[in-house]
Amino acid sequence: MEYLIVRQFIRSLRNLDVILDKALKHAEARKFDPDNLFGARLFPDMLPFSAQVRIACDTAKSTAANLAGKEAPKHEDNEKTFAELRGRIGKCLAYLETFTEKDFANVKPDALIKMPNRPGKALRAREYLIARQIPNFYFHVTTAYDLLRSSGIELGKADFLGQMDFVEV
Amino acid sequence: MEYLIVRQFIRSLRNLDVILDKALKHAEARKFDPDNLFGARLFPDMLPFSAQVRIACDTAKSTAANLAGKEAPKHEDNEKTFAELRGRIGKCLAYLETFTEKDFANVKPDALIKMPNRPGKALRAREYLIARQIPNFYFHVTTAYDLLRSSGIELGKADFLGQMDFVEV
Repeated sequence: MEYLIVRQFIRSLRNLDVILDKALKHAEARKFDPDNLFGARLFPDMLPFSAQVRIACDTAKSTAANLAGKEAPKHEDNEKTFAELRGRIGKCLAYLETFTEKDFANVKPDALIKMPNRPGKALRAREYLIARQIPNFYFHVTTAYDLLRSSGIELGKADFLGQMDFVEV
Repeated sequence: MEYLIVRQFIRSLRNLDVILDKALKHAEARKFDPDNLFGARLFPDMLPFSAQVRIACDTAKSTAANLAGKEAPKHEDNEKTFAELRGRIGKCLAYLETFTEKDFANVKPDALIKMPNRPGKALRAREYLIARQIPNFYFHVTTAYDLLRSSGIELGKADFLGQMDFVEV
């Protein structure tokens, strides 16, 4: 299951990258600087668009690394432009692509995964994946989408879900 | 895996119900009618808050039913108030609670699941769960959260993620 979820995170981040490209094209057509979207927020005390994208990436990255017992590369939060933010997605995708099914062959559902922002606490691997990482990943991808959508970019749920392997019946 | 995901959908819908309760209390404290939030949208051509909650419920319901080879009960989209919307979540939770691990014991990852809004198309059960239903479920729960959050309700990601089974280490 872990590998399937990591592959799906890859698909979802690729969809997010296409969504960012649509936002760039929209800004170009409307003749405004796409970087104006960088700090967009749904409410003044919410994290901005840039952070939503970064946290989505970091959630995917740490899920794969923690479950496979590897150390994820550190990506500095220093992006200042839309192009750099797409680069961040690219770096995350390249890292996720290094994983194979074998990396997760020995995941024990009960293994303890420590939470860096929760000292003294851990989650069992199964709970970590299903109750923490999957919802958290989609929370940030969706909020990034919602921010662009509420900024007037023409997007639909098909952009969020992306291409699926339909079978003719 | 199917049963674990259905149990997680239950947890997530319970979290959504707590979020709706917080919105009700906020409306009470600020002395406005909570039903004013019912039709809130992030953008004029997006679905309103009520639809986000309904679709989250229906996605969870159809995931369980389709994978277990059962027929999901039809819940009419006729809610007009916040209280009725919470009732919709309640009906969905009651249905999801009827499933046991046994219901999913014979799920074949390659089984074809027909898509009601895509005539002539189907998805393999594994693809249906991972690429369609899980992302779609969290898309609508998150957008419901984002709508309330952007309306000034005091919420945090802890409300979205809810209680997790942390272990002391």
